[in-house]
Amino acid sequence: MRNLRINESRIAEDLAALAAITDPGRPWTRRAFSPRFDEGRRWLAARFQAAGLTVRTDAGGNLLGRRAGGAGLGTILVGSHSDTVPDGGRFDGVAGVVVALEIARMLDERGYRLRHDLCIADFLAEEVSVFGVSCIGSRAMAGVRPEAWNGLEHEGRSLAQAIRDVGGNPDLGAKAEDIRAFFELHIEQGVVLESGGTDLGLVTAIAGITRIEVTLTGRPDHAGTTPMGYRADALVAAAALVTDIETEATRLAQMGSHFTATVGEFSITPGAANVVPGSARLLIDARAVERPRMEGFIAWLQARMADLPAGIRADHRILSDNAPVPMDPGLISLLDQAAATLGASQILMASGAGHDAAFMARLAPAAMVFVPSLAGRSHCPEEFSEISDIALGAEVMAEAILAFDAQK
Amino acid sequence: MRNLRINESRIAEDLAALAAITDPGRPWTRRAFSPRFDEGRRWLAARFQAAGLTVRTDAGGNLLGRRAGGAGLGTILVGSHSDTVPDGGRFDGVAGVVVALEIARMLDERGYRLRHDLCIADFLAEEVSVFGVSCIGSRAMAGVRPEAWNGLEHEGRSLAQAIRDVGGNPDLGAKAEDIRAFFELHIEQGVVLESGGTDLGLVTAIAGITRIEVTLTGRPDHAGTTPMGYRADALVAAAALVTDIETEATRLAQMGSHFTATVGEFSITPGAANVVPGSARLLIDARAVERPRMEGFIAWLQARMADLPAGIRADHRILSDNAPVPMDPGLISLLDQAAATLGASQILMASGAGHDAAFMARLAPAAMVFVPSLAGRSHCPEEFSEISDIALGAEVMAEAILAFDAQK
Repeated sequence: MRNLRINESRIAEDLAALAAITDPGRPWTRRAFSPRFDEGRRWLAARFQAAGLTVRTDAGGNLLGRRAGGAGLGTILVGSHSDTVPDGGRFDGVAGVVVALEIARMLDERGYRLRHDLCIADFLAEEVSVFGVSCIGSRAMAGVRPEAWNGLEHEGRSLAQAIRDVGGNPDLGAKAEDIRAFFELHIEQGVVLESGGTDLGLVTAIAGITRIEVTLTGRPDHAGTTPMGYRADALVAAAALVTDIETEATRLAQMGSHFTATVGEFSITPGAANVVPGSARLLIDARAVERPRMEGFIAWLQARMADLPAGIRADHRILSDNAPVPMDPGLISLLDQAAATLGASQILMASGAGHDAAFMARLAPAAMVFVPSLAGRSHCPEEFSEISDIALGAEVMAEAILAFDAQK
Repeated sequence: MRNLRINESRIAEDLAALAAITDPGRPWTRRAFSPRFDEGRRWLAARFQAAGLTVRTDAGGNLLGRRAGGAGLGTILVGSHSDTVPDGGRFDGVAGVVVALEIARMLDERGYRLRHDLCIADFLAEEVSVFGVSCIGSRAMAGVRPEAWNGLEHEGRSLAQAIRDVGGNPDLGAKAEDIRAFFELHIEQGVVLESGGTDLGLVTAIAGITRIEVTLTGRPDHAGTTPMGYRADALVAAAALVTDIETEATRLAQMGSHFTATVGEFSITPGAANVVPGSARLLIDARAVERPRMEGFIAWLQARMADLPAGIRADHRILSDNAPVPMDPGLISLLDQAAATLGASQILMASGAGHDAAFMARLAPAAMVFVPSLAGRSHCPEEFSEISDIALGAEVMAEAILAFDAQK
């Protein structure tokens, strides 16, 4: 057992209390803009207040708790999100909010007076919300939430109204101007840390995500009367493409920095037992932390789609294309030193998933700490991380925050 | 222009008249057990009668027109089916009924007196009907319609009642006992004849059809946070399987007799852009005219499913397994000689699709003549065959019937 300043029991209690605030019969579900989410927010606000923080909801709908600093140097922001996916877990997002709160409590308890303000944040709607969009709060705080989103509707309520309903104001600018550094602890949602027996991951960059829809069109024919050599089978062509995408993505991943490509949606038409498939649709999710590799992959894919069997036509559309976001080397270095000081093993790794930190990085130096996920599971009830791992991550983060605050 | 005894214009008129009997706004739809089907049957019965045939509906619900022979040698049966799939064509099935009628008319007109009775048949519900089953009439005539089918229901009506409604009697045996030979003309529904510029196909066997459901189970993981090497991607495994099935089926097809394997249904779960597919379901439709090759394919598939990437499990179920049905070499030989006499080019070929002839072969020697399908299309409004090709097939079939009738 390490002797931590961070209080593991309080983290465990907070996580348990928030887990109990779930839609009945659906552990664990606390989606943004739902009554359950509001209940979680009220509980969090009370907890923030009890920790001596000044609580408010900003115009972007983010719940903030502030502890004033001594030197007017601006704000160190720490946080994550308390919303979940439907039937999600007890750790994704929530762990980062609880850890931020615990760091504030620990600093207070130990009498650490920071030179910077410390602000802890529960960002609004990091997960894809009922409005179909994600990272609503962190985008607003970064000043990049699209104006047009105000008009999105769900069950007769606009997103603008929903933001008002959580205490925000969609008509005001929500961009934060005084952030000097941002820290976020999050569960890894993968198996890299667990399989390596590593305590922590220090995130070097959040991968850019490009989504490409490919449609292969062949010819639907009678499965019995069309000999093998006379077919233009869209599924057979699509299967070869899936295999090649896997091979190319594996090759790129082996070259060094994080790269993944996944065909997560796949369907054929007409989809009848006795009909040769006439068309196939693939949705490719490609992620890279180095933009040139993504560009290389897209170029490879386009060349591959020009090389199809006779009778098969390919069409593709890039549905979305987001650049990778590097984390700040200075903050990574502080986290690295803190981990060494505390005897925590760590590796540098990319984040394949998106996070609020990607938007905070537009405002200030940003960094993330990953803690191990059991069997890599996330967004499901089985999602689990050890409280001791979360506490160790919090301790390292607190140490790095103290170091940052002490810098010239 | 060949100088045929068969009257091409009458065939064209009959096909046009039946095409006009279609569900309004859905060319061409005349499904078994529908009011439109009954209307087509009434039209056919009148046409049979006008041709001097004795008309009745047998217990199995088949519409029959009989022309008595001179020597009491039993019956030569000729026919196909007048029902269509939804949004089907004007030729599948119908062409074989109209040709049977035209042969009867031609024999009458030319004063040919056969030694055998000639019976022309419109088999009930060859296509998959609203009751979910097919070849209802020809199975009954072969004495193999499952008793349990009587209880099948559609919109509150039992199949037994539906058979009564077309004039059959589901409680009586419908097995025909005096059939000596069966002939069926049908459109090819494939591109073999058209692409070879061949007039006719003489069917050597109707392929056996085996349907195998394969489920591959891997592990659903986050597409962003799970590195390429840590995945158990069911789609990637399924894609390799599809490729190997295609390769193996092509190899078997190149070895000689008809073989096809088609993955016509294919789906994955969970089917989300950012989740590695956790499972994939394939439905394989395999068809062979030589049973050992089907058995070889199934054995190959089972061995292939034992050879999967780490983390992937395969389960399979044989959903249905029907043996191939050889056509009668004696009748094929008569058709071959008739084609030579009439200067029609022909090839021996397997039927990849099922037909009423597969059930008639249980009662008597059976044979089929295929006529070219435009672009191989069938079961769709674009389905087309040239009237001149149909008439030539009818002439060859009539010549073979005369030759069979004259045999010792």
